[in-house]
Amino acid sequence: MKNKYTHHNNELTLNNVGEAVLLKGWVAKKRNLGGLIFIDLRDHFGITQLVIRPEHPQYELISSLKSEYVIEVSGTVLERENKNNQIITGQIEVDVKNLVLLNESETPVISMQEESESLEETRLKYRYLDLRRPSVQKYLIKRHEITQSIRQTLLNNKFYELETPILAKSTPEGARDYLVPSRLYEGQFYALPQSPQIFKQLYMVAGFEKYFQVAKCFRDEDLRADRQPEFTQIDVEASFITQEDIMELTEEVFANLFKNVLNKKITLPLQKMDYKDALNLYGSDKPDTRFECLIEDLTSILNGYAIPLFEGKETIRAIRVKNDKSITRKKLDEYAALVKKHHGEALAFLRKENGQLSGSIAKFIEKEDFILEDELVLIVPGKTENVLPALGALRLKVASDLNMIDETKDNLLWVVNWPLLEYDSEEQRYYAMHHPFTAPQDAHILENNPKDSLAQAYDIVWNGYEVGGGSIRIHRQQVQNLMFKTLGFSQEEIKSKFGFFVEALKYGTPPHGGIALGLDRVVMLATKTNNIKDVVAFPKTQSAKDLMLEAPDFVEPIQLKELNIKVDSKNE
Amino acid sequence: MKNKYTHHNNELTLNNVGEAVLLKGWVAKKRNLGGLIFIDLRDHFGITQLVIRPEHPQYELISSLKSEYVIEVSGTVLERENKNNQIITGQIEVDVKNLVLLNESETPVISMQEESESLEETRLKYRYLDLRRPSVQKYLIKRHEITQSIRQTLLNNKFYELETPILAKSTPEGARDYLVPSRLYEGQFYALPQSPQIFKQLYMVAGFEKYFQVAKCFRDEDLRADRQPEFTQIDVEASFITQEDIMELTEEVFANLFKNVLNKKITLPLQKMDYKDALNLYGSDKPDTRFECLIEDLTSILNGYAIPLFEGKETIRAIRVKNDKSITRKKLDEYAALVKKHHGEALAFLRKENGQLSGSIAKFIEKEDFILEDELVLIVPGKTENVLPALGALRLKVASDLNMIDETKDNLLWVVNWPLLEYDSEEQRYYAMHHPFTAPQDAHILENNPKDSLAQAYDIVWNGYEVGGGSIRIHRQQVQNLMFKTLGFSQEEIKSKFGFFVEALKYGTPPHGGIALGLDRVVMLATKTNNIKDVVAFPKTQSAKDLMLEAPDFVEPIQLKELNIKVDSKNE
Repeated sequence: MKNKYTHHNNELTLNNVGEAVLLKGWVAKKRNLGGLIFIDLRDHFGITQLVIRPEHPQYELISSLKSEYVIEVSGTVLERENKNNQIITGQIEVDVKNLVLLNESETPVISMQEESESLEETRLKYRYLDLRRPSVQKYLIKRHEITQSIRQTLLNNKFYELETPILAKSTPEGARDYLVPSRLYEGQFYALPQSPQIFKQLYMVAGFEKYFQVAKCFRDEDLRADRQPEFTQIDVEASFITQEDIMELTEEVFANLFKNVLNKKITLPLQKMDYKDALNLYGSDKPDTRFECLIEDLTSILNGYAIPLFEGKETIRAIRVKNDKSITRKKLDEYAALVKKHHGEALAFLRKENGQLSGSIAKFIEKEDFILEDELVLIVPGKTENVLPALGALRLKVASDLNMIDETKDNLLWVVNWPLLEYDSEEQRYYAMHHPFTAPQDAHILENNPKDSLAQAYDIVWNGYEVGGGSIRIHRQQVQNLMFKTLGFSQEEIKSKFGFFVEALKYGTPPHGGIALGLDRVVMLATKTNNIKDVVAFPKTQSAKDLMLEAPDFVEPIQLKELNIKVDSKNE
Repeated sequence: MKNKYTHHNNELTLNNVGEAVLLKGWVAKKRNLGGLIFIDLRDHFGITQLVIRPEHPQYELISSLKSEYVIEVSGTVLERENKNNQIITGQIEVDVKNLVLLNESETPVISMQEESESLEETRLKYRYLDLRRPSVQKYLIKRHEITQSIRQTLLNNKFYELETPILAKSTPEGARDYLVPSRLYEGQFYALPQSPQIFKQLYMVAGFEKYFQVAKCFRDEDLRADRQPEFTQIDVEASFITQEDIMELTEEVFANLFKNVLNKKITLPLQKMDYKDALNLYGSDKPDTRFECLIEDLTSILNGYAIPLFEGKETIRAIRVKNDKSITRKKLDEYAALVKKHHGEALAFLRKENGQLSGSIAKFIEKEDFILEDELVLIVPGKTENVLPALGALRLKVASDLNMIDETKDNLLWVVNWPLLEYDSEEQRYYAMHHPFTAPQDAHILENNPKDSLAQAYDIVWNGYEVGGGSIRIHRQQVQNLMFKTLGFSQEEIKSKFGFFVEALKYGTPPHGGIALGLDRVVMLATKTNNIKDVVAFPKTQSAKDLMLEAPDFVEPIQLKELNIKVDSKNE
């Protein structure tokens, strides 16, 4: 494809001096220095300096150019007097012979400078201008590169990239669905898929053996900073494979991504951590291993003293950190609130300074050799299932406060040996920890001792974020029936909840399994931003609004009439 | 990625004789010949014959295997006695040492044979079984290969693959939108995009310069055989380019597709046909040039005779074909009905056999040298705008009836020089032939003589199907305002209809344009099927139903309540 420019604006160097060139782009900056006009011409790739002399026949026109005007210039490359070593083209400038004004621009509503001061709301409304800034474009270019790298690894492994429907069906469990009213069937609805899970398993039933897709998924949930109502998933499924095969493939995907896109190296195989170790040591099923500060069990030590706060508690766990001055009494109150927010009962603390023990429970402690000089020990008593997540959250908070995290590090690891089931003691029934199609490691244990049953499931974690998860699926009817029985489903419930999919499993389903990677999160971590909106071209706000499109919006009454629906006002 | 099989079932040949192998797959066929059991083992790639001898310790188990059971076998490759030269593995068989039953299967509801007799409805309901047949899988594998080939050409040309939202906004013109009720904003709706048109133009405004996407698009229209409610579009846009650049790029896309996927060659550059020639000669804006039979203007010849049917008609046009016996009186009635269906006024005909002229208007003709021996001339009088499409439709029908089309041919061409506007004489106003952002070839003609204004628009046609279309877009405000003025829009209408997009054009929009290719149609033509459902993994019926999912479907009342909508029954 021939574009009519001779070079991008990041290309010209001293090697090009004397050449006649044609450039196109936007007026990024214009200065007049003693009659000489200098223009920074910007395109997607970079910036080239133009120079226009006072005797130029178009001098008047060029003087009137404003920021963000689109121009085309032909001219000659000259060596620059005042060189700029910050940019590739800093050694040269282009002496403009002829200029064509391709388009004008009103004064941009938001600043086009790299460090924009504009409010996020304004930037989202004028996203097409915000995206013009090279630092913002960079996120989407990386997204492109990452997607291609992942795709290439899967293609190298002979996976087919296959599509699945967007107009699908509401699923009985999981998150809230986005619905689409049907015009032809009154009162009926399609649903946008929360993931292509069912379809990719059907591809396996159909014998396609190796499937992947860069798939759009939809969840109508209240949003957090790392969630969007529509998100993109690298969806993978294969037949005749084991958990190890999928993990090895995924590691190859990440190793290539680091090597080819991020110019970094990760060491394979990745660490594999047991789910129960992740919880016991990090208080999280997505442990951030970039820093130590592991959770310790102080039950046997502290139970020796008659500390009223700890009396009759199932467990007493703690993390120990440097006794930093920044951890004030006020800070500790904040930590106590955080612990409570995560269902911890209380936070006790001990510090040792100049051999002196202090802190909320210091007066009870007789033998203090479990705490070192200059240490602060943060202690949470209670039920294990509450204590661990509370300390996990506290661990992250303290690490952030004390700058314990090396942000240049990229720690990836697997969490494996997940429980298959969760027991809900209120409802007195089991729930599937992932979904009811996840295969148990041992069907006999599922039958005889369901609460100890482990799943053939695996999550991949990057710097404390879950960036992917998958499992081997149940492919045998007997095991599937056992699973449903354990979950307490009746035959009618199975039919109504899982219908045609259970039917499909009857016809010679091969052993299969897969994984799904959250592309948005992967890009977020790869580009070291913590706002998912940065890596989505046209993102929605926390309240699922597109400020640029002004969507959602009201529609014409005829549209609703055709769809056989009407608005059911809460105010009526 | 290590799979635990040693070979796919299309791999073993005489070169492997004596090797120990491990194979996996489905029991496609099983026969017992004098105690020897032969099994055709099928996987995604092909079939390998297994042989089990009567003395085999698992003989009883193997005897009980049924069609579509999933098995794993280890054994030794032997040269076959009765060779089959139809398949790659036809020279060998595998002497089974050990067999593992991976899964059982109920008797499939639809035939697994290549030539399925099952009804389309049944096949769609059990699509996962239908897809197991190699001939059906082939369509989706080609789809995968075609998509990768197109992507690779665009990547080679430095295009970025960038995503756009699915939860977007209802557009005021165009086809009917699929709507998605918002839970958080009562009475408001998202719309699924009919195409990413606005977003790709915004990528250009934002300076991304070269964009493409394999994009899902949605139209809630009544369906035809070559349409689905959701379809996939290869969406392309670039800045600082001309119509020729986009056409050249598209030709490279198709040349690579033919070469790399179809093992065929197309000659570049493709033919470029004027829109008005397409209409005048083929009666269609998507001419099928695989056969001649061009439309001729017989006005001056036939106006010489006083033929009542032709009196006062604007034009008289005709096609001439071989006077085939199969074109009976009944057939001609059928043709006359077809002409009327396409708004033609009437069909007259003339045939010459053994020097004798016959036909509906034969008695009026004095000088018959315009019709040759053994010819049949089919004549339609009336208004040019009605006559040409009617003859275009008739031309296709006759060609099909007389087997005039060489189905092995692949004729691709461009239709160019489209009118910019269509005049609606009832409403006495102009409409944009494509959309109001399509650039005119000459803004002065648009200003002074709008009905003669041509567009910088281009469609690519393959064997009479439009497989893509695009245009250079308006990038200057003055031209955009002129266009809106010509279309008769008030300032308020512009704001309400095109809102933020017109706003975006103000801020230094670069010259840009693009194209969109209909992937489903491309695959349909590449695989020589005429049913679009063949090339879609999980298709919907003509009435937009997914028979496998049973979607659309009723949902729980709570779901509608949360979305602030209720069903507005037509029966109430």
